[in-house]
Amino acid sequence: MHPSIEELRQLSCKTLESQKVPEASAWLQTDLLIEAELRGLPSHGFQRLPRLVKRLQEGFAHPRAKGRAEWVRPAVLKVDGEQGLGPIVMTETLNLLELRVRQEGVAIAAIRNANHIGMLAYYAEAAVALGRIGLFLTTSEALVHPFGGTEPMLGTNPIAIGIPTDDTPFILDLATSLVSMGKIHHHALTGTQIPKGWAVDAQGHGTTDPVAAKDGAIAPFGDAKGYGLGLAVELLVATLAGSAFAPDVRGTLDATHPANKGDVIVLIDPASMGGNGTALAAYLDSLRASRSADPADPFTVPGDRMRARREAAMKHGITLPDTLLNEIRGLVPT
Amino acid sequence: MHPSIEELRQLSCKTLESQKVPEASAWLQTDLLIEAELRGLPSHGFQRLPRLVKRLQEGFAHPRAKGRAEWVRPAVLKVDGEQGLGPIVMTETLNLLELRVRQEGVAIAAIRNANHIGMLAYYAEAAVALGRIGLFLTTSEALVHPFGGTEPMLGTNPIAIGIPTDDTPFILDLATSLVSMGKIHHHALTGTQIPKGWAVDAQGHGTTDPVAAKDGAIAPFGDAKGYGLGLAVELLVATLAGSAFAPDVRGTLDATHPANKGDVIVLIDPASMGGNGTALAAYLDSLRASRSADPADPFTVPGDRMRARREAAMKHGITLPDTLLNEIRGLVPT
Repeated sequence: MHPSIEELRQLSCKTLESQKVPEASAWLQTDLLIEAELRGLPSHGFQRLPRLVKRLQEGFAHPRAKGRAEWVRPAVLKVDGEQGLGPIVMTETLNLLELRVRQEGVAIAAIRNANHIGMLAYYAEAAVALGRIGLFLTTSEALVHPFGGTEPMLGTNPIAIGIPTDDTPFILDLATSLVSMGKIHHHALTGTQIPKGWAVDAQGHGTTDPVAAKDGAIAPFGDAKGYGLGLAVELLVATLAGSAFAPDVRGTLDATHPANKGDVIVLIDPASMGGNGTALAAYLDSLRASRSADPADPFTVPGDRMRARREAAMKHGITLPDTLLNEIRGLVPT
Repeated sequence: MHPSIEELRQLSCKTLESQKVPEASAWLQTDLLIEAELRGLPSHGFQRLPRLVKRLQEGFAHPRAKGRAEWVRPAVLKVDGEQGLGPIVMTETLNLLELRVRQEGVAIAAIRNANHIGMLAYYAEAAVALGRIGLFLTTSEALVHPFGGTEPMLGTNPIAIGIPTDDTPFILDLATSLVSMGKIHHHALTGTQIPKGWAVDAQGHGTTDPVAAKDGAIAPFGDAKGYGLGLAVELLVATLAGSAFAPDVRGTLDATHPANKGDVIVLIDPASMGGNGTALAAYLDSLRASRSADPADPFTVPGDRMRARREAAMKHGITLPDTLLNEIRGLVPT
């Protein structure tokens, strides 16, 4: 089905408000879900809403919490998310950092006890809109095995980086897993095999069976190097936020536990160094103009494809599975 | 040949001092080369010394420059390396950051106009020895093609991250290229083919001929994700340091141009957030104890293998090619 963006926004806002989420917070949480759908990331879109509502109902997400923030050093902000909604706590934190970064030039925040923050690109874009360089790290339940290992010991530990230029910004948003668990689930649902190398089963053997992979672990991206980066994210977030390590993380995939993963934000003012936005844009254009391996399928700069998908979706609308749209319509109190 | 570490140290120090490098600086530059050899990274070891001497002789490396540093914001340090030796400028910068990070909690520095800084793990270990989390980025000549592209548009853009724990620290040091150009050169020297997917030739076609690859470009690690990260390093360094982009970078592989790449350091005090060193060490131990894909070849935590290689080399010594050792012996003034 092709619901209008306006209908989706109203459905979601009304649903969240019925769970005592204040109007502005409901709008923000909804906007994040809409932006994920527009960018072709349904795993971070409305399929998250029913679980979020359940978490609000069960008391694992607090509708009004915005997080308790404390400047422990001039450039270091420590945030207890108080089980607030992820985008609410993140946006509050980003605003506090932004005020401080004007003076300090760089500032860092670590958040614990906040709910799932969703698509990281959303925040990277927000940082760039403020003229800042933003680095975003977050952790998750254990889904990824070490390179050369076979047990789920790491989160999917995504990294997002936003860098402003004088033209289109650079927006990188990637999980340090080879694929998402959502993709494995999609193969399980459609009954199609997964490629070799994507995952191992519960016994630690490589598998092409998506159902067996769901009980096993996903490979890290980029072999030993990607594993190292995913592990760096795991350690950086846990040590700065004081949050749980992947095997003990709960609360982003269930409606039965408080959220105990962590989130880290680093904000930098490029103007403090003089800035270089025109040169960045020119270099990125020369990169785009360089020779493609397949002239029919030119490679892109991170952020370009996401922007193109969003533009197309703004024109042609969002597609949601019938069952999901009906479920969301059923969430709204009558 | 198996020169003693002491002989190598003396040869290198005397050589550098004969080029007017002060004693303490000669020791530091030499120590970096020795540590690279001990860790099994000959591409960052003594094979760099003859070119460094040439750069000193030609005036492209200034023996006494330590860099001109300016705090442009309370937590932001801008450094003009004044064509000083990389490790000298880096260590000066790290010391300035360290003093400031005690107060600020986080601080960032960007360096332009410094010579090649060598093995990044050296600085990550220095940060960890101070009890700090350190993030190190640097750029290089254009050697890497975009994922889906075929022209050398990016540097090998390495990333190093050091994180202290209450036991052995986490030390990650990786280039964002799939392999090093040094490895390609090694295949060319030994007349062995390179694996498919490592590189393209000057015309942009995939090649297994190392000689053709030398004129072409190396693949990024980790496909699209690794390309994105390498590009993020390129942009972050260029915008913060105001340094050149890869296609215009000179001076780390030649003795004919000033060095115009850039370096970025972020230092964080984990104690500002409360620290978590015991939990980090325990998690890393549980990771090491988790099931391996090949029980005969257990996977490791980044830094473990490097430490093991160093321990073995401290016992059994360093091996240098005869030609290289003779060349280095020939550099010392008689």
